[in-house]
Amino acid sequence: MSERLCRIAFDGMGGDDAPSVTVAGAVAAVRDDKGIEIHITGIEEKLREELSKHEYDRDRIIVVPASEVIETAEPPVVAVHNKKDSSLVKALYMVKRGECDAYLSAGSTGATLVGGQIIVGRIAGVERPALAPVIPTEKGVSVLIDCGANVDARASQLVQFARMGSAYSENVLGVKDPTVALVNIGAEEEKGNSLVKETYPLLKECRDINFIGNIEARDISAGAADVIVCEAFTGNVILKMYEGVASTFYRLLKNALMKNTVSKLGALIVKPYIKDGIKDFTMSKYGAAPLLGCRGLVMKTHGSCDVTEVRNSLIQCREFVESGITERFEKLFGDKSED
Amino acid sequence: MSERLCRIAFDGMGGDDAPSVTVAGAVAAVRDDKGIEIHITGIEEKLREELSKHEYDRDRIIVVPASEVIETAEPPVVAVHNKKDSSLVKALYMVKRGECDAYLSAGSTGATLVGGQIIVGRIAGVERPALAPVIPTEKGVSVLIDCGANVDARASQLVQFARMGSAYSENVLGVKDPTVALVNIGAEEEKGNSLVKETYPLLKECRDINFIGNIEARDISAGAADVIVCEAFTGNVILKMYEGVASTFYRLLKNALMKNTVSKLGALIVKPYIKDGIKDFTMSKYGAAPLLGCRGLVMKTHGSCDVTEVRNSLIQCREFVESGITERFEKLFGDKSED
Repeated sequence: MSERLCRIAFDGMGGDDAPSVTVAGAVAAVRDDKGIEIHITGIEEKLREELSKHEYDRDRIIVVPASEVIETAEPPVVAVHNKKDSSLVKALYMVKRGECDAYLSAGSTGATLVGGQIIVGRIAGVERPALAPVIPTEKGVSVLIDCGANVDARASQLVQFARMGSAYSENVLGVKDPTVALVNIGAEEEKGNSLVKETYPLLKECRDINFIGNIEARDISAGAADVIVCEAFTGNVILKMYEGVASTFYRLLKNALMKNTVSKLGALIVKPYIKDGIKDFTMSKYGAAPLLGCRGLVMKTHGSCDVTEVRNSLIQCREFVESGITERFEKLFGDKSED
Repeated sequence: MSERLCRIAFDGMGGDDAPSVTVAGAVAAVRDDKGIEIHITGIEEKLREELSKHEYDRDRIIVVPASEVIETAEPPVVAVHNKKDSSLVKALYMVKRGECDAYLSAGSTGATLVGGQIIVGRIAGVERPALAPVIPTEKGVSVLIDCGANVDARASQLVQFARMGSAYSENVLGVKDPTVALVNIGAEEEKGNSLVKETYPLLKECRDINFIGNIEARDISAGAADVIVCEAFTGNVILKMYEGVASTFYRLLKNALMKNTVSKLGALIVKPYIKDGIKDFTMSKYGAAPLLGCRGLVMKTHGSCDVTEVRNSLIQCREFVESGITERFEKLFGDKSED
């Protein structure tokens, strides 16, 4: 892997400020990482116009024309089915055909999840791929799995999420024997809705993960477990509560410091310390999230990402490919041993 | 109502620091509010010992002996059934028999919810009572309903939660024509799990509430709706994410300000501004949460509450009784018009 370039199929039209941000991010990535080659999909003239604003290694950013764009608000299944010549769908097909090693988009999450499953395809033995972002905690980061669009999950799927999340934490994030916890409304085994009640004993019997029991949502940000398992509706609520409460808190803090001349004077002194102290607790730093369980690397980064975040996400793609996570998952689930 | 005292059945043994905190809180409440009379239940000697440490109006704190205590970890249904002479169950029976106007406990949430339903009973037409705390937002507060133990709710129940939450917001919190939103993983009507997909059209048809559609969890703390509707599992996750993320943020901020002599100097200046700016964003200020839909006022305050919080919760009980919320709900649901 390290001898040849890592080829990334990159949806050039996805994200709030595409294609200017996607192109600038791609340029920054090939400049800073000599190991990657980017196949950027999208409206050719627009991509070329943006590219013309930059100096870059022309051998490592290849424009792949695509005439359509999938919008965030479009129903994912319909969009993936109808817009075969979209930047998103074309990029996914490049991974499916083995022309690229990884896929990245800052566009529609739903279309990436649906397309990842039906175009790139599931690893044999995986019931449902799961979106697994890392979230910041007081101790570092945790993996939150599933944050995808697969709502109404079954207990057997949650068990697979736990196993995939654990393998991801260990093999990609480098956590030794990662602790795995199930999101519930109390610490006791008998608590919860029917899904978590059914899942708990299955996780307890699972010999290839370090299951430590239930976790209450209040303990997630403290870093009480390395892998946080839940179905996607709950995962989405957790992820967005992080965003919402953190930005509310940040705004209140800013307003407090800007109140009057005295507070502004104090703010001058404390600002660098506060910035440094809470910088690890912003979501953007953690970049792209993998859709675990696909027969190829499918990565999603957030729609409002800036140039640096696009650059980081592209470099992350190469790191993930080199970690061999897809091959590892094929071994983990291919033998169908579900314990 | 205002001519006679409001009688509160208060679980003297509930909460982390009972009975010292419960007794001190009761003493503070009768001192500061001449309109209430507290019937405090619990182990007689312990209550009298604590009471002996205070000066108070003896006519307005009445000890009601109860020989048992329900612990937080006990399975609620079993505990309520078996411990008939517990402080919690006895207090609930006083409301059921009309000897008291309101119930308050800082003890087991589960036992209060179960006991509220089976002892005090549901208002005719209410499928399930719902626990409805207020949560702080950038604009003030919102009602979060349901945060109870009623997981695996049905769509018809969520519609009732919306109507009860709206009536509570309008009649008790004084919000004119409160906006009601359904927690979902996207803003579009077609998003979500099967429960919210089924609930959305029912809420749209509901003529007695101001339904504004879906709300994503990230917009809750900004104050995007007055009433936030969800089933209890999600409600619990939201409430506890609030707690967790806010306290993590607070700890990081504190550590940043205490980093060295310079940061400490700045902290001296900004501390009062920060304290003032974020004080409204702590959960404890908002006191007790009502279990809406019971045939009598059932209130739960959090286990770690201090003397001031107990005092505030007891005074809140009187205010809620005087608002006539129970009678209002009997009218709202009694006619069985579920539109």
